[in-house]
Amino acid sequence: MGVKFFSKIKVELGARSYPISIGNGLLRDDNYLLGSFRNRQVVLVTNEIVEPLHSNKMASFFKKNNIEYLLIVLPDGEKNKSLSVLATIFDQMLKNGINRDAVLVALGGGVIGDMAGFAAACFQRGIDFVQIPTTLLSQVDSSVGGKTAVNHNLGKNMIGAFYQPKEVIIDIETLETLPDREFNSGLAEIIKYGCIVDLDFFIWIEKNIHKLVNRSCNVLAEAIKKSCEIKAKIVELDEKENGKRALLNFGHTFGHAIENGLGYGNCLHGEAVGCGMVMASKLSVQLGLISEKDQERVANLISLAGLPTKWPDWPKEKYFSLMSNDKKIKNKTIYYVVLGEIGEAKLLSVKDKVISEALF
Amino acid sequence: MGVKFFSKIKVELGARSYPISIGNGLLRDDNYLLGSFRNRQVVLVTNEIVEPLHSNKMASFFKKNNIEYLLIVLPDGEKNKSLSVLATIFDQMLKNGINRDAVLVALGGGVIGDMAGFAAACFQRGIDFVQIPTTLLSQVDSSVGGKTAVNHNLGKNMIGAFYQPKEVIIDIETLETLPDREFNSGLAEIIKYGCIVDLDFFIWIEKNIHKLVNRSCNVLAEAIKKSCEIKAKIVELDEKENGKRALLNFGHTFGHAIENGLGYGNCLHGEAVGCGMVMASKLSVQLGLISEKDQERVANLISLAGLPTKWPDWPKEKYFSLMSNDKKIKNKTIYYVVLGEIGEAKLLSVKDKVISEALF
Repeated sequence: MGVKFFSKIKVELGARSYPISIGNGLLRDDNYLLGSFRNRQVVLVTNEIVEPLHSNKMASFFKKNNIEYLLIVLPDGEKNKSLSVLATIFDQMLKNGINRDAVLVALGGGVIGDMAGFAAACFQRGIDFVQIPTTLLSQVDSSVGGKTAVNHNLGKNMIGAFYQPKEVIIDIETLETLPDREFNSGLAEIIKYGCIVDLDFFIWIEKNIHKLVNRSCNVLAEAIKKSCEIKAKIVELDEKENGKRALLNFGHTFGHAIENGLGYGNCLHGEAVGCGMVMASKLSVQLGLISEKDQERVANLISLAGLPTKWPDWPKEKYFSLMSNDKKIKNKTIYYVVLGEIGEAKLLSVKDKVISEALF
Repeated sequence: MGVKFFSKIKVELGARSYPISIGNGLLRDDNYLLGSFRNRQVVLVTNEIVEPLHSNKMASFFKKNNIEYLLIVLPDGEKNKSLSVLATIFDQMLKNGINRDAVLVALGGGVIGDMAGFAAACFQRGIDFVQIPTTLLSQVDSSVGGKTAVNHNLGKNMIGAFYQPKEVIIDIETLETLPDREFNSGLAEIIKYGCIVDLDFFIWIEKNIHKLVNRSCNVLAEAIKKSCEIKAKIVELDEKENGKRALLNFGHTFGHAIENGLGYGNCLHGEAVGCGMVMASKLSVQLGLISEKDQERVANLISLAGLPTKWPDWPKEKYFSLMSNDKKIKNKTIYYVVLGEIGEAKLLSVKDKVISEALF
């Protein structure tokens, strides 16, 4: 199979600007990789699942080109996105004489990107960092925008930094080994972009959902490109989430509650967000913002993406308690992202009573 | 004693600019404090030594003004500037429902400022942060410039962030309870500013060293102001230490080796830096940059400040090994800050052999 380069997007953040490259087979393209890693000391952070699948390509490239690298393999899973696992990254970097000029590469899904990115942000107060996301979810969402973090047992992503990568390398070929459930989880975030800011993209996804589910390479490349463009634009407007960036949390306030309530690992992020988007759409109907028909359109697309649309049948008290730790709280009020119409989200504070009537 | 306001300096860093206020009795001045903390949720981080000395003033101010606050008292000492103690800060903040709009106050010396600042940098990806340094060393150095960090057992300040405070409040009155050894340690950094960029200030310190050692309030306020101005200017030029900021490490490459070799806690930072500056001056003589007489002037001033000028009699191998973990290493070469003349420092890579001949 040949290498195909699809597109390059730039995230414009002044001195912190960086490119996102999208292609098929980029990790096999030595010339391309040399542009990023020539003469660098490299720390390659991955996990035990991704390592046998993809790190050998990188390792053989490093060896062939005499690039000094340290491989750090972390345990898999959200429960390991912790301060204590983070500490083991620092231990290995310091034991191996990694210095401030090194570049840290995150090779894996969102957990690896978040944790390795935070390690790069903190190591000697910040070293260069390259994201190589290997799941659809991380390719369209977490690898772009510079949010890095680890979890605390009292809340997800509670300890972290805004720290932009120097580059994002998206190799669609890495998705070939991704299980269906994980792949579909990534589709949730793609659908989200259509919902919150781009009706045309939403319609395009409706038309192409079967090709997407069947992983047609060209359609996938287009969906990833469009998703990254939308995310990049929002991040450019609001890097540190003081305003518009909050719209990216459409479905996430409910979604995080579901993830948290089920226990990390029992439900994929995209699955929880899919449910959360159905909930947020229902809330939008209750608030008189969108029609029942629009709500069904959103739910239908999520369902066609192979994602669940029914949320756990928990008492409302459980939901409110789970949501009370959310970061989107200002002055003790929870703000929800709702739809004004498909393709236009807004942030609203909503009374608990209204939420209950709509959902529980 | 009345409250006296001496001066306000601004650190100009665009969107991250902030003021440094210098006064006597500021922590007793409710009107002044209200300007900073009105309607805020406050996290007051201090240590077991500072807490009984100064936190009661803050606490009574918060209570009187119905300001919600969480007091976090950390164990004292450099050895507690660790990831594990940092984790206890996050635990307490999350258990007590601290949110993103809170302001974290670091009340204490450099260890508290570094660690609390890093906690503020990481908590929910960054919350507001106010430095209230209570030692001379932290007032003239670590509270200004946004370097935050914790130590790793393989190196000092290895895990951290550049994260600027919103404000620095320097209350000279807090120095009244500072032991002489700690006070003198702060004088080392004041002398450093003269050495590296300001001959006139160096001469002023020479003239006023006895008043400084005797803690004359007006002279002290002037020395603190000038030191903060110099540090602010350097930080403005080079926030993230890619260039000129490295000059602030005059005496620190040797100093860190001494601190590390003696074990943290057996030697104060300023004492080690004092010795380190004598060593760096001797090296400057060896390199033909300054005269013996200038070197003696530097050593003499450090001695008049009540600081040791003799470094440990260790084999050179021990020094080189201790310095090999330094952050000022680029391409495996250690860079040293030396004096071109008093008031003008420069960064040079120096061969081990030259270092040995000058010092060991």
